[in-house]
Amino acid sequence: MRVVGIDPGLRNLGWGVIDVEGSRLTHVANGICHSTTGDLADRLLSLHGQLTEVILRFRPEAAAVEHTFVNKDAVATLKLGQARGIALLVPAQAGLVVGEYAPNAVKKTVVGVGHAAKVQVDHMVRLHLPGVQIAGPDAADALAVAICHAHHVQSAGRLQAAVKRAAG
Amino acid sequence: MRVVGIDPGLRNLGWGVIDVEGSRLTHVANGICHSTTGDLADRLLSLHGQLTEVILRFRPEAAAVEHTFVNKDAVATLKLGQARGIALLVPAQAGLVVGEYAPNAVKKTVVGVGHAAKVQVDHMVRLHLPGVQIAGPDAADALAVAICHAHHVQSAGRLQAAVKRAAG
Repeated sequence: MRVVGIDPGLRNLGWGVIDVEGSRLTHVANGICHSTTGDLADRLLSLHGQLTEVILRFRPEAAAVEHTFVNKDAVATLKLGQARGIALLVPAQAGLVVGEYAPNAVKKTVVGVGHAAKVQVDHMVRLHLPGVQIAGPDAADALAVAICHAHHVQSAGRLQAAVKRAAG
Repeated sequence: MRVVGIDPGLRNLGWGVIDVEGSRLTHVANGICHSTTGDLADRLLSLHGQLTEVILRFRPEAAAVEHTFVNKDAVATLKLGQARGIALLVPAQAGLVVGEYAPNAVKKTVVGVGHAAKVQVDHMVRLHLPGVQIAGPDAADALAVAICHAHHVQSAGRLQAAVKRAAG
């Protein structure tokens, strides 16, 4: 199964694609969609176009988006929400089911603790995906979301298998 | 000039289309796009589809979106932001320039005061657009945004004309 993880942001929207075969994870690609200038509508249009290109190019079969809250101020939260709307829309337009994970859930899966520092997440992403070249912090976060989704899908699969065995 | 006004919301996204000829405003259509159930990504996809249909059907030449902040909590603000991302994206995808107006600017233009009640906005929209049937409060707000944009475009036009006369 191929998974795209997305770390939404208006200025920098990180994405990371991995392949999942059983418990084996392989890095496919990662990058950052940028939108720094222009009207807000034009910036969202640009992010939509860039992310659509990623989906068309790498053809993931599942998507996962980080579910962040910014509590510091309403303006920042609204901006993030707008970028997040695009991050959720694009994979849905491609017919993918989109999982959502809170940052603490991502950290807990990838690092083992919910309150891990950014540098620990980056380190564990590199351990999970040996030899990966990471485009930047937002791309590392996106790869972490993809890894989190892969683990959750695997756990759900093992649970289903166990239930089947128990029922059989 | 045909203008579409949009009042974004995740559950109810209001829209209103008016024609503007000089100072004459005519109502064309208004309605509400609903998305009440399902995954967030599916709800955004549904809003995107419904709003795209409105744009394709009525072919506006300009768009304006209400620029709301929800300060009560970060969850509500993030939800609104996601719907707002779609509200800005759809007209941009159709090649329209998208104006943004704060609620107080809309009220000041339509009612005359920045802190008007919802019922006053509704009343003034009906005065501006005689005989209009309004689909609901969100559609009334969307028509108010469209009227606000029409006034701003007219004022800008009159200013340009005055500058030309003064220069000539």
